[in-house]
Amino acid sequence: MPESESIRDIGFAKLDFDRCRRTGLGETVYAPGKTKEQLAVILQAFRAAGKPALTTRCTQEQYEFAAQRLDRLRFDAVSRVLVMECDNMPRHSGRIAVCTGGTADIPVAEEAARTVEFFGATVDRYFDVGVAGLQRLLNCVDSIRQADVVIAVAGMEGALGSVIAGLVEAPVIAVPTSVGYGASFGGLAPLLSMLNSCAEGMSVVNIDNGFGAGVLACRMIRIADRKAKK
Amino acid sequence: MPESESIRDIGFAKLDFDRCRRTGLGETVYAPGKTKEQLAVILQAFRAAGKPALTTRCTQEQYEFAAQRLDRLRFDAVSRVLVMECDNMPRHSGRIAVCTGGTADIPVAEEAARTVEFFGATVDRYFDVGVAGLQRLLNCVDSIRQADVVIAVAGMEGALGSVIAGLVEAPVIAVPTSVGYGASFGGLAPLLSMLNSCAEGMSVVNIDNGFGAGVLACRMIRIADRKAKK
Amino acid sequence: MPESESIRDIGFAKLDFDRCRRTGLGETVYAPGKTKEQLAVILQAFRAAGKPALTTRCTQEQYEFAAQRLDRLRFDAVSRVLVMECDNMPRHSGRIAVCTGGTADIPVAEEAARTVEFFGATVDRYFDVGVAGLQRLLNCVDSIRQADVVIAVAGMEGALGSVIAGLVEAPVIAVPTSVGYGASFGGLAPLLSMLNSCAEGMSVVNIDNGFGAGVLACRMIRIADRKAKK
Amino acid sequence: MPESESIRDIGFAKLDFDRCRRTGLGETVYAPGKTKEQLAVILQAFRAAGKPALTTRCTQEQYEFAAQRLDRLRFDAVSRVLVMECDNMPRHSGRIAVCTGGTADIPVAEEAARTVEFFGATVDRYFDVGVAGLQRLLNCVDSIRQADVVIAVAGMEGALGSVIAGLVEAPVIAVPTSVGYGASFGGLAPLLSMLNSCAEGMSVVNIDNGFGAGVLACRMIRIADRKAKK
Amino acid sequence: MPESESIRDIGFAKLDFDRCRRTGLGETVYAPGKTKEQLAVILQAFRAAGKPALTTRCTQEQYEFAAQRLDRLRFDAVSRVLVMECDNMPRHSGRIAVCTGGTADIPVAEEAARTVEFFGATVDRYFDVGVAGLQRLLNCVDSIRQADVVIAVAGMEGALGSVIAGLVEAPVIAVPTSVGYGASFGGLAPLLSMLNSCAEGMSVVNIDNGFGAGVLACRMIRIADRKAKK
Amino acid sequence: MPESESIRDIGFAKLDFDRCRRTGLGETVYAPGKTKEQLAVILQAFRAAGKPALTTRCTQEQYEFAAQRLDRLRFDAVSRVLVMECDNMPRHSGRIAVCTGGTADIPVAEEAARTVEFFGATVDRYFDVGVAGLQRLLNCVDSIRQADVVIAVAGMEGALGSVIAGLVEAPVIAVPTSVGYGASFGGLAPLLSMLNSCAEGMSVVNIDNGFGAGVLACRMIRIADRKAKK
Amino acid sequence: MPESESIRDIGFAKLDFDRCRRTGLGETVYAPGKTKEQLAVILQAFRAAGKPALTTRCTQEQYEFAAQRLDRLRFDAVSRVLVMECDNMPRHSGRIAVCTGGTADIPVAEEAARTVEFFGATVDRYFDVGVAGLQRLLNCVDSIRQADVVIAVAGMEGALGSVIAGLVEAPVIAVPTSVGYGASFGGLAPLLSMLNSCAEGMSVVNIDNGFGAGVLACRMIRIADRKAKK
Amino acid sequence: MPESESIRDIGFAKLDFDRCRRTGLGETVYAPGKTKEQLAVILQAFRAAGKPALTTRCTQEQYEFAAQRLDRLRFDAVSRVLVMECDNMPRHSGRIAVCTGGTADIPVAEEAARTVEFFGATVDRYFDVGVAGLQRLLNCVDSIRQADVVIAVAGMEGALGSVIAGLVEAPVIAVPTSVGYGASFGGLAPLLSMLNSCAEGMSVVNIDNGFGAGVLACRMIRIADRKAKK
Repeated sequence: MPESESIRDIGFAKLDFDRCRRTGLGETVYAPGKTKEQLAVILQAFRAAGKPALTTRCTQEQYEFAAQRLDRLRFDAVSRVLVMECDNMPRHSGRIAVCTGGTADIPVAEEAARTVEFFGATVDRYFDVGVAGLQRLLNCVDSIRQADVVIAVAGMEGALGSVIAGLVEAPVIAVPTSVGYGASFGGLAPLLSMLNSCAEGMSVVNIDNGFGAGVLACRMIRIADRKAKK
Repeated sequence: MPESESIRDIGFAKLDFDRCRRTGLGETVYAPGKTKEQLAVILQAFRAAGKPALTTRCTQEQYEFAAQRLDRLRFDAVSRVLVMECDNMPRHSGRIAVCTGGTADIPVAEEAARTVEFFGATVDRYFDVGVAGLQRLLNCVDSIRQADVVIAVAGMEGALGSVIAGLVEAPVIAVPTSVGYGASFGGLAPLLSMLNSCAEGMSVVNIDNGFGAGVLACRMIRIADRKAKK
Repeated sequence: MPESESIRDIGFAKLDFDRCRRTGLGETVYAPGKTKEQLAVILQAFRAAGKPALTTRCTQEQYEFAAQRLDRLRFDAVSRVLVMECDNMPRHSGRIAVCTGGTADIPVAEEAARTVEFFGATVDRYFDVGVAGLQRLLNCVDSIRQADVVIAVAGMEGALGSVIAGLVEAPVIAVPTSVGYGASFGGLAPLLSMLNSCAEGMSVVNIDNGFGAGVLACRMIRIADRKAKK
Repeated sequence: MPESESIRDIGFAKLDFDRCRRTGLGETVYAPGKTKEQLAVILQAFRAAGKPALTTRCTQEQYEFAAQRLDRLRFDAVSRVLVMECDNMPRHSGRIAVCTGGTADIPVAEEAARTVEFFGATVDRYFDVGVAGLQRLLNCVDSIRQADVVIAVAGMEGALGSVIAGLVEAPVIAVPTSVGYGASFGGLAPLLSMLNSCAEGMSVVNIDNGFGAGVLACRMIRIADRKAKK
Repeated sequence: MPESESIRDIGFAKLDFDRCRRTGLGETVYAPGKTKEQLAVILQAFRAAGKPALTTRCTQEQYEFAAQRLDRLRFDAVSRVLVMECDNMPRHSGRIAVCTGGTADIPVAEEAARTVEFFGATVDRYFDVGVAGLQRLLNCVDSIRQADVVIAVAGMEGALGSVIAGLVEAPVIAVPTSVGYGASFGGLAPLLSMLNSCAEGMSVVNIDNGFGAGVLACRMIRIADRKAKK
Repeated sequence: MPESESIRDIGFAKLDFDRCRRTGLGETVYAPGKTKEQLAVILQAFRAAGKPALTTRCTQEQYEFAAQRLDRLRFDAVSRVLVMECDNMPRHSGRIAVCTGGTADIPVAEEAARTVEFFGATVDRYFDVGVAGLQRLLNCVDSIRQADVVIAVAGMEGALGSVIAGLVEAPVIAVPTSVGYGASFGGLAPLLSMLNSCAEGMSVVNIDNGFGAGVLACRMIRIADRKAKK
Repeated sequence: MPESESIRDIGFAKLDFDRCRRTGLGETVYAPGKTKEQLAVILQAFRAAGKPALTTRCTQEQYEFAAQRLDRLRFDAVSRVLVMECDNMPRHSGRIAVCTGGTADIPVAEEAARTVEFFGATVDRYFDVGVAGLQRLLNCVDSIRQADVVIAVAGMEGALGSVIAGLVEAPVIAVPTSVGYGASFGGLAPLLSMLNSCAEGMSVVNIDNGFGAGVLACRMIRIADRKAKK
Repeated sequence: MPESESIRDIGFAKLDFDRCRRTGLGETVYAPGKTKEQLAVILQAFRAAGKPALTTRCTQEQYEFAAQRLDRLRFDAVSRVLVMECDNMPRHSGRIAVCTGGTADIPVAEEAARTVEFFGATVDRYFDVGVAGLQRLLNCVDSIRQADVVIAVAGMEGALGSVIAGLVEAPVIAVPTSVGYGASFGGLAPLLSMLNSCAEGMSVVNIDNGFGAGVLACRMIRIADRKAKK
């Protein structure tokens, strides 16, 4: 386990430059709890190492501060995803379907979609196909079946994933959202609903964790790549 | 409010002989917490008054004790519903669809169905039509649309009601069940799921409360009867 | 199931123009999570199709933005309901009683009442009749008994629905509200109280969900209409 | 604070022989978690000191073991209260009304009632007067108004206390019970309901804690006695 | 029950002018959820009827609006209690001890104290006597023992009531507060702690409900008055 | 969607014979809530159709009843998995690592492992490698890295998945177990821990849901197969 | 990190023979979830290695099975602790006070005490000194102050630790127990109470985790030993 | 117990000037819930008595108000700790390791570190060594092993403490933080995770309670000092 030289200690954080090689994915930063100065220092360190980076839950203020110090930044205000590009961004052959129950789930879905795209796979978006108007979902189910992995993003009762998992043969990643009110209890309702799904072939990430779903989807489609290399 | 003479005090309970006239429904007894002797005394009092009675959550032991003292009892071991019949049982024109997500929800569904039948309406049963195998539900949706009221009984993620409510125009009563394990937390998961439904036209009763759903369904179909009388 | 042509995809949402025909009710929009631009686009699409629309939880800002683009909008600041009218608004013969435990429950009650009125039924309002001052409720119980359906809106201990359900023969829809503090836990207390009611003939919708209660009430009174058509 | 000599250490417990003088009430023992041998040793120590004792939540087995070693024991199987009498049992002039919502709440109510009687006050019992059949309560409200203190015992939605507190001027002690199922969550529902009561003049003890309500009621009626002595 | 003429319907509220006679206490208003206009109208109605009124949780803005329309208002910014006085304010002989665990509990304690004083009893204040520095409490326990009723206000672990209830013979009303952070969960920790007290003679009101504790204390000390009248 | 002829209605259940073709996996049955007679009928139907079946959470009694009517049954008492074999069982090239934190997690892990084996993939077992003795895990991490998918089964604090997800590049499926006591709250603690993992590339299934993890793992490794077919 | 050779894999468990050297404490086994055969195999392996072992939560059946195969076993039925002794058991100079709120907390306290004794320190027991009878605690506080570490074991409201931590200068380990009922919610009430203590110098272990408290106390008193060695 | 003269009553608080002598630690103040005037008065009283003081959770505004009235104040904006120094600040020989899982946990960790330093011990900081990148922790474990006590501060899944406790022989104090989102539920997830740790030798303080961890660590290292004095 000789990787220790690859970790760079910058005081408030320990950057892991080897993670990319070890897990096959690029560098990522979780912005909350970091000052704008800390975030900029971290991004500059990755840039200096020639690595692209994905920052999630980035505020407008954090973005603007970084943008004054670094080029090739792309910020999406809906999902609050900040991408720092470099040459030779990765490309994968995989195809991920990102579905939402409603319009209000789009910010979380976009976090998932942009994470997938950062890691080089292709995203198909199916928004506002919640189960209360089932025909909207049935209209596009043949298309969703073409995906290697399906990400189902839903708040309120969170039933979208269960219905999709029963209709497709791909693995389904369910993302509960905090969209809702009252007895939603901040997303607890769809979270429990998804965990208790009677559909097979589905698993769940944290409430509003589009990023986590995106990373996991990319790990899934890389199984085939690794097999090919063996 | 001169009804007070209609309440008969038998010490451990106060029987309300006027409830039938006031709410338009027959007498009902909730068996848990009552000794077999207490239950038998209550049923004998209703029999003496010439009234039928529905007992829910009745144990085999309570039933057998009562059966030695009273005739015309019918006990269903699956739903634990005990019906004490009399002449001139009520009849209604209404038609209630009782659906379940899975086989394990049947005891609760039967409690609802037998409650409805006790009050004189007709029940159509659609069992094991949960959303994880959507085709099972779609196969019978045209038939379900004929119902005046739909009762959707489901545990686990509890999505059945949401999907049905989006497909029919009748009011839907969702009954969460304690079927499930782990993060179901005794039925909390389907309860929250149903309360947060993005489908319109649905409401929820307590976990495993088939009886309550049945009574409510009958109140709904009696709206038309009352209107006709006016 | 040839309805799919009736769904119009506008990118961030899939509008279901057939819902009205299918469920017998008008178009509705849930405003939270939608930008003011998105909401206006949706309303314009319904207007173009000649359909009225009910928007719930609309902010003042969303309303004002839409009002610059569309006429015949009516906004109620208490309930935050926005109604977009058209010619030939529906009319029903039903009569719904909307009751509240206290003054602070009125916004939720008004959401229910205006939803009912949008769909064409008549509303009688009984506000501030909570059970801690029982005489207030008893004074108007004879009047409430005339209603086809009762909507009982209450926060704090949420006992209003139980008491009413024991006094009337109509179905009762209980709406817990987030009015309260401390161990109310955002409306959890009245929600649990209502779900555990020992009164029969009552069901529950989500905390503060006046809209859902209103839609459900209208579905109930339409049972009679549908029966008449058969 | 020279009371320390009054505490007797018997290894697994420290008996407080001064408590009676200090709080004006007799000795009490909580049986769960004590072996039958430990319980008997404790009772023998109180008997040796010439003191009566009230044991709550006593099992049949604990009672029978003690009964072989001590006389003047009275055991009530419904409430599981065991009273060890002595000469000169206390008498008070106070009058406590103990009410229950249903029949299944009687064991808890009897624990309260027998605690009150052990301390020498008078109990009036009003059982099965729950709010879902309001007339049952209204029939006896004039009588309840004669009480110095009211104990309201109820499970399910737990609304009994709120309604009573609005009808009488005495202080009301609400006792939630674990009677119920599903979303009752072991008595959480009536507990929260009672804590959130919009009625004034009521407080709450632990779920099923009839004993605590009884002790508190006796402390209340002793305020007058103490004032008289001053 | 001929009291109904004493209820005055002002649309958004139903004022109960008979409550004073019925429960022996003055008029009270809960300010949250009422507009400043609504609150002023209510106070003016009570003033017109010659009655004093206690308003709790009043905002500075609500107070100032009312103060422009009514005289004899006294507002306490710490507890947010607004008292509208009149001639012949009630006087009682009772003595209530109001204790707090810490300084941050004082706003809730003052709500209790000012409620008690409004109803005419005397308050002794013992602030910052929490159990983590036991000597502070022991220093004043002899004084607290003189009280007819003790109100124990505490957040964090909420142990104050248990310790006091074991030291005095008066009834103890425990008021959990939302003072704390983390696993306090908004006051849930002291609430549960107080409900589970192993001390006898204590009961609990809602989190931060100083008002409720004050009303209850006054009901307790009026037991003696009522007895004297019989 | 012409699949409806493939669903066979046997009254208490609707068997979906097409599921295998549609999702690429064999037939599965969840035993709880089914009588032994119902289970045997279901298995006989699958046998008659020439299909293998996996039954989970099967009791000894259900197994023995079925074994008297069907041959080629294999029952594992630790995981309570019952496999009904047939000719031509599927085979896959994938390799799944199943890890547990402790010995008590083995029943859930075996449910996962036997599900994977039923669907034809290979399982490597790494039991008792919890994070409190990190060296046990580090000793076998090189071996775990060979897996296509890792299933991490852990109760108590549930940290196993997070640590593994940071060490391997395969997707990780975390299975919380109800192993633990006290503040585990039936598995809530590891469930929340896993959902909040700061490690990327992991998702979670229901508490004790080894079966769900196994199915999902198989869906993941079939991505490559499906790609190859395209 | 060359310790890996010290881990012995016995299939269902990986025994860590180096733990003793690494953490300075003896071998321990958590019995639940292990068959009696598995437990005996583990104990035999430690015996073969010449090491003593402490087994917690051992059933009578597990103990008797092991006792037929191994000598020098001591089983305490109250705490369910099984000690397997060997020559040269460790001895420490430290002194640990183990206090309980009530008699029912003794099993958990004994688990802590016997763990401490197994590791070689001395225990002083102070049982039934709960805060509701404060004098019992004050009587022995001078003695408790002599301890190096205090373990405070309490259920119900769990206030014992807070009071002690304010009276002594030693670190206090609070152990909540599941003793209680109703709103104790299995020990949640004392757990939250202890976590929110306003007393300084206290920390908390899991509900009923006497063992964990004992191990931690021994780690604390070994700080001095290690310092002496430096 | 003649300490009572050492408590000074300043109305809204009772200052305990003897605490320092009794517990061996300096004066501390919890700022929330105190006005800036109250805080300044308290600090002035300690200054007048010649004592240093540590104020936690101090706002910038409280600090600035105090700084205009007192000198020798040091405020750390990250941890919100305010130290009022005096001559002869204490010094201890102990060494405390303060570790964090991530960068966002630093404010809580600094509260712990500065508390330790205020009481005179030495702190070694190890920030951003969370278990998802295990190598970062393994790189510094030899150094952490030199500490007398380890404080492990972590949000999200909170596994840091468990892993460290298995690697060192010092006692470990785990501090859950509210860092996280969704199913973290304000720090509940790491709190439960830490309480359920399968690692021995660890205990837990309240969410975000760095101060409590610091005080406890100092109590631990003072065991040796007190032993030396005996």
